[in-house]
Amino acid sequence: MRDVAVVGIGMNNWGELWDKDLRDLYVEAALLAIDDAGVDHIDSMYIGCMSSGLFNCQEHIGSLMSDYLGMNPIPATRVESACASGGIAVRMGFMEVAGGFSDIVLVGGVEKMTDVSGDGATFALATACDQEWEAYNGITFPGLYAMMARAHMHKYGTTREQIAMVSVKNHANGMHNPRAQYHLTPSVQDVIDSVKVAEPLNILDCSPITDGAAAIILTTVENAKKLGKPIIKIIGAGQATNTIALHDREDITRIQVASDAAEKAYKMAGKTPKDIDFAEVHDCFTIAELIVMEELGFCKRGKSGPAVEAGETKVGGRIPINTSGGLKSKGHPVGATGVAQIITLVEQLRGEMGKCQVKGAKVGLAQNMGGSGGSCTVTILEAMS
Amino acid sequence: MRDVAVVGIGMNNWGELWDKDLRDLYVEAALLAIDDAGVDHIDSMYIGCMSSGLFNCQEHIGSLMSDYLGMNPIPATRVESACASGGIAVRMGFMEVAGGFSDIVLVGGVEKMTDVSGDGATFALATACDQEWEAYNGITFPGLYAMMARAHMHKYGTTREQIAMVSVKNHANGMHNPRAQYHLTPSVQDVIDSVKVAEPLNILDCSPITDGAAAIILTTVENAKKLGKPIIKIIGAGQATNTIALHDREDITRIQVASDAAEKAYKMAGKTPKDIDFAEVHDCFTIAELIVMEELGFCKRGKSGPAVEAGETKVGGRIPINTSGGLKSKGHPVGATGVAQIITLVEQLRGEMGKCQVKGAKVGLAQNMGGSGGSCTVTILEAMS
Repeated sequence: MRDVAVVGIGMNNWGELWDKDLRDLYVEAALLAIDDAGVDHIDSMYIGCMSSGLFNCQEHIGSLMSDYLGMNPIPATRVESACASGGIAVRMGFMEVAGGFSDIVLVGGVEKMTDVSGDGATFALATACDQEWEAYNGITFPGLYAMMARAHMHKYGTTREQIAMVSVKNHANGMHNPRAQYHLTPSVQDVIDSVKVAEPLNILDCSPITDGAAAIILTTVENAKKLGKPIIKIIGAGQATNTIALHDREDITRIQVASDAAEKAYKMAGKTPKDIDFAEVHDCFTIAELIVMEELGFCKRGKSGPAVEAGETKVGGRIPINTSGGLKSKGHPVGATGVAQIITLVEQLRGEMGKCQVKGAKVGLAQNMGGSGGSCTVTILEAMS
Repeated sequence: MRDVAVVGIGMNNWGELWDKDLRDLYVEAALLAIDDAGVDHIDSMYIGCMSSGLFNCQEHIGSLMSDYLGMNPIPATRVESACASGGIAVRMGFMEVAGGFSDIVLVGGVEKMTDVSGDGATFALATACDQEWEAYNGITFPGLYAMMARAHMHKYGTTREQIAMVSVKNHANGMHNPRAQYHLTPSVQDVIDSVKVAEPLNILDCSPITDGAAAIILTTVENAKKLGKPIIKIIGAGQATNTIALHDREDITRIQVASDAAEKAYKMAGKTPKDIDFAEVHDCFTIAELIVMEELGFCKRGKSGPAVEAGETKVGGRIPINTSGGLKSKGHPVGATGVAQIITLVEQLRGEMGKCQVKGAKVGLAQNMGGSGGSCTVTILEAMS
């Protein structure tokens, strides 16, 4: 198996982008990544996208994106796993290069969630849960994560304030990310006082509806050296599934799928949680970041709230999390999120994160998740000296 | 790179299956394939599906299918490339085994197209063409292929009768396929007299709307020997893209993407068109089979009509095509089609095709296509002695 490096990164300024459609978004990010890598061609491409069908009445986006990027006739494959679509696209691209099938692969993710057709964004997003048992009966994702939050508060004594602190921290980090959708500095009290969505979660606990794309270029470490790029290697790539419906889980204070994906990634990388210098995790809702911290082994079970309260996940803390601003501040164009997490890892490992730079960062981890934890990828990157 | 074999196959009886939902269809086919292979576990799975979002209000089907098949926490990845989704799932599974990432991979395809929500099947299928330039302006797939048919007739003198003969042949083959949706024996005149859809194509030139699933098990040739299965090896796997919109093509009497995918598959297999004993091709419309015959090198350009008229593509002919009945008779649950084609190849190479058996068949080719030729896979299988 060949060693694989990330040699190019590109993304748009995310937000409500009324003047750009699905193909514009993807092509813009892809060209930025190709330019950053300095490659003169690509051999294959993957596109993570959750629901261009329901959002934009457009399937077959492998053909569409290869076409509009001027890359025909190369293979172009769309992968979908709800909000983990981007992370899975990264793993597919990794396998294609590692396995020797292609030398240079473009991995992108995209979602155009505003200006949508049909029944709107909340309806489309709800198709990531079990339609027959969950969505049809009226539940949507804020409600599912609210139940997980209530259970975590009840079982472990996690406080409303600790949950809110995730939002406060991520928004503080996002202030330094020029591509983030929201530049806000809410206080804990602002989060607690914000509009209720599904108790105990308020609007400032929820990631937004976003238009955006992200793209990276993968190649062999050998090629990366020839390109003169910093060698940032994918050392671990894990993917797992769990029940799509929340009611089928043994314990809804857990997101087992993150633990299962992490176990594979840690094993492949030969690393433990203590070796990770910083992480991007899937904070679709504030409570998700807390539970995932526990699943990834960054703190003991039930202790994520106190860890956040103690500042352990801030820049400069023990294990900085979501230095990009996370989904909360940066935005969450669902298919693009998993790819954008890798971009933040690369920027940290290149030392380009400015005020959110983690000093001496050598190993970073990205965790990307679909639905209420039905699918997940964990990717570990290391800067090689 | 490791040698990969197909060791298990499974599919439902296809049709309008009002008592089965998306997950029922997939799980049924997957269990049949697992049983046929005799494996006691699988390491990973792929699911080809075009639009469970628009058809069934259900995305995230990697998680759903792994869950309902009882396979959590293995990785499960949905791939989409319109009607080529199944063929691409096969190529992904092939790469995962060949690259050494997994030993046993389940590759399935599924589509539940009847009993659909929203704007119906024709609307959902039209999202495989360019929404902004084609579908939005009112064209759907019968119209796109009708233009290709008219152009082919004009340029090469292909007759209406020759086009109809594709339907007659495929329905004749489908009479011997117990899992086919339609068991009919139309004559050339019946096809020409059938209800008009988009001139010159009538209803008996069009593949139907179908519910169904198909699944195969891939493993290494080494494992296949241990399982005591006939060794049916994937010797070629090509994938390509072309413009999503028909108006961007230089010549609409061609489906260039099939030629591009075939070129890669032939090269990898070390074979030429003359080495192929039989083929399953993507006859979504009768005219597609004719053009694809030319792209795959089974006859000279413009000579597919006369070749069909001469009986060259019948069982017993020079190059039997669609011995399963093809999409026309067997049905076309779009995400499942590319996987079902592989099942027919395996059945031919195992010598299990009864009255449609191609005598002495050693090498078979499957061609699966998305949209009006925006994406395509070509897979070549060989029976090893």
